[in-house]
Amino acid sequence: MSTAPDLTQTTAPAVTTPGFDDVLAAAARIAPHAHCTPVLRSRSLDALAGCELHFKAEHLQRVGAFKFRGACNAVWSLAEADAARGVVTHSSGNHGAALALAARTRGIPCHVVVPDNAVAAKVAAIGAYGATLHYCAPTIAAREAACAKVQAETGAELVHPYTDPRVIAGQGTAALELLGRDGGFDALVTPLGGGGLLGGSAITAAAMSAGTRVFGAEPTGAADAFQSLQRGERVTELVPDTICDGLRGLLGAPNFALLRQHRVEVLLADDAATMQALQLFWQRTKQLIEPSSAIALAAVLGNRERFAGQRVGVILSGGNVDLEALGKWFARG
Amino acid sequence: MSTAPDLTQTTAPAVTTPGFDDVLAAAARIAPHAHCTPVLRSRSLDALAGCELHFKAEHLQRVGAFKFRGACNAVWSLAEADAARGVVTHSSGNHGAALALAARTRGIPCHVVVPDNAVAAKVAAIGAYGATLHYCAPTIAAREAACAKVQAETGAELVHPYTDPRVIAGQGTAALELLGRDGGFDALVTPLGGGGLLGGSAITAAAMSAGTRVFGAEPTGAADAFQSLQRGERVTELVPDTICDGLRGLLGAPNFALLRQHRVEVLLADDAATMQALQLFWQRTKQLIEPSSAIALAAVLGNRERFAGQRVGVILSGGNVDLEALGKWFARG
Repeated sequence: MSTAPDLTQTTAPAVTTPGFDDVLAAAARIAPHAHCTPVLRSRSLDALAGCELHFKAEHLQRVGAFKFRGACNAVWSLAEADAARGVVTHSSGNHGAALALAARTRGIPCHVVVPDNAVAAKVAAIGAYGATLHYCAPTIAAREAACAKVQAETGAELVHPYTDPRVIAGQGTAALELLGRDGGFDALVTPLGGGGLLGGSAITAAAMSAGTRVFGAEPTGAADAFQSLQRGERVTELVPDTICDGLRGLLGAPNFALLRQHRVEVLLADDAATMQALQLFWQRTKQLIEPSSAIALAAVLGNRERFAGQRVGVILSGGNVDLEALGKWFARG
Repeated sequence: MSTAPDLTQTTAPAVTTPGFDDVLAAAARIAPHAHCTPVLRSRSLDALAGCELHFKAEHLQRVGAFKFRGACNAVWSLAEADAARGVVTHSSGNHGAALALAARTRGIPCHVVVPDNAVAAKVAAIGAYGATLHYCAPTIAAREAACAKVQAETGAELVHPYTDPRVIAGQGTAALELLGRDGGFDALVTPLGGGGLLGGSAITAAAMSAGTRVFGAEPTGAADAFQSLQRGERVTELVPDTICDGLRGLLGAPNFALLRQHRVEVLLADDAATMQALQLFWQRTKQLIEPSSAIALAAVLGNRERFAGQRVGVILSGGNVDLEALGKWFARG
């Protein structure tokens, strides 16, 4: 792990980003707990895209998302005494569920702060993995206060969903498996929300396969990373509006540093293109991926000339679909 | 193949039903063309159901449904000269697509009669597999007239979706693979529409595993088979009303004979139970099955006491979901 200067603002504090060594250590650490997910191929999708697509199937990962990798690495990175005090995070989505299950694999407490307007089914899932739930008002201030209170009372370690270097390193293990198994990729495309998966993937690709260009697929309605790279400073005021519920987080500071360092390019896709890609993928493979995964395929299909004839790795981030939201979309016909 | 008396009506003509030899011949015939689909397990679904579930994944079959097995067997059963004149059927659903692809594997013409109010996407899929489409008015009379006209003009062989003995024998190969691979099942559950899959499965189970009870899962809103077995005669006047679009066909005469011969039991599930089972299966496995598949799981979950602690084979018939219809269901929340 190295402390790199934050390239965004000269006055900002330095950010800590993990290195490839950390990804390799994470792979060893999580191996007893995480699935090595399969890589899927589809002749008909290759024909439609005009390139050779290799899909890393993280919807088949535990808790249905790659998030288990980072959470598991964070949990198993802790010294014994620290681990005993448990972990805490704020997330009503996949990271909350992932941290809860990761904590359970080590037999330590997990606290998850959730806004009191969170989707009941998602909160129930986090509870089912054994986490202690802490409700708070749906504001950032209330959320941070609730986290601080849990930390003060229990000594639990905070595990941020995507800026934590242990989390970023853990997410990099999906690309490690993909590049290590198939190799020779011209391009690697991952969904882009807070930048944990993309940051970790960029570290891995740079170390293993320097000729592989790395792309993030970001919703047009949550294009803060795209704008951040254009402006050269991190955009933090954007209000996301997208059906990709896993990609509404704003790019983190270390994530931004990694994207710049590894010259990652951001491709935008609007929700209509993402949902078209999702339907296409569902139809052709019968695999249930969520919109936040489908956006990576949408980005390839929307930029055919960039990928023509190439060997392209695509990380499908998860399969935890919000059926009510999707239903409303499909019911429009 | 044996010509058995029709047990339903003393005045009815004899019906032709296939035997286990026909299933074995079908397996050899379709092996170069059909997938041997995987069998899926889920610890969390086993825990919920209170039994050991082995899911035969026909949603991963070619054209996304078991229907390819029967269609392929029919196409490859034809003598060379007959085959050259092609095949014809009336089906805007999975059987139409399956017959089209099966015909393409042999390089022969395929004609599909579709009602002019059929879902455009489904018709387009059949066309994409290379079939010649013949539109007709959406009545049984118009459909049969259109089929007869194609037969008269081309000499094409009619392949009925579920009463054709070659089709029934082909559908029996899914159970053949499942019972041959895992064995020792207490029960085998398949969806029940016209009775092609269930009839073929019953033949296979009776020959391979006499101790395995065979169940059909039928929608409460299309319970003609349930009523037929109760009354001892085939109910033909029922108007189906169910979200299971693959199970709206009425039980065929040879299918009825097979169900009675093999003492098959019918379990009913209403659409609400089926859609709950579908959501559960989607959530836990990330595999996209259609309602007509999920009903088999719904039947097990709705009759826990019947299957408690048992080893249960479940045939998932397909994964061709009608997203607009499902969207309307999910959007209700």
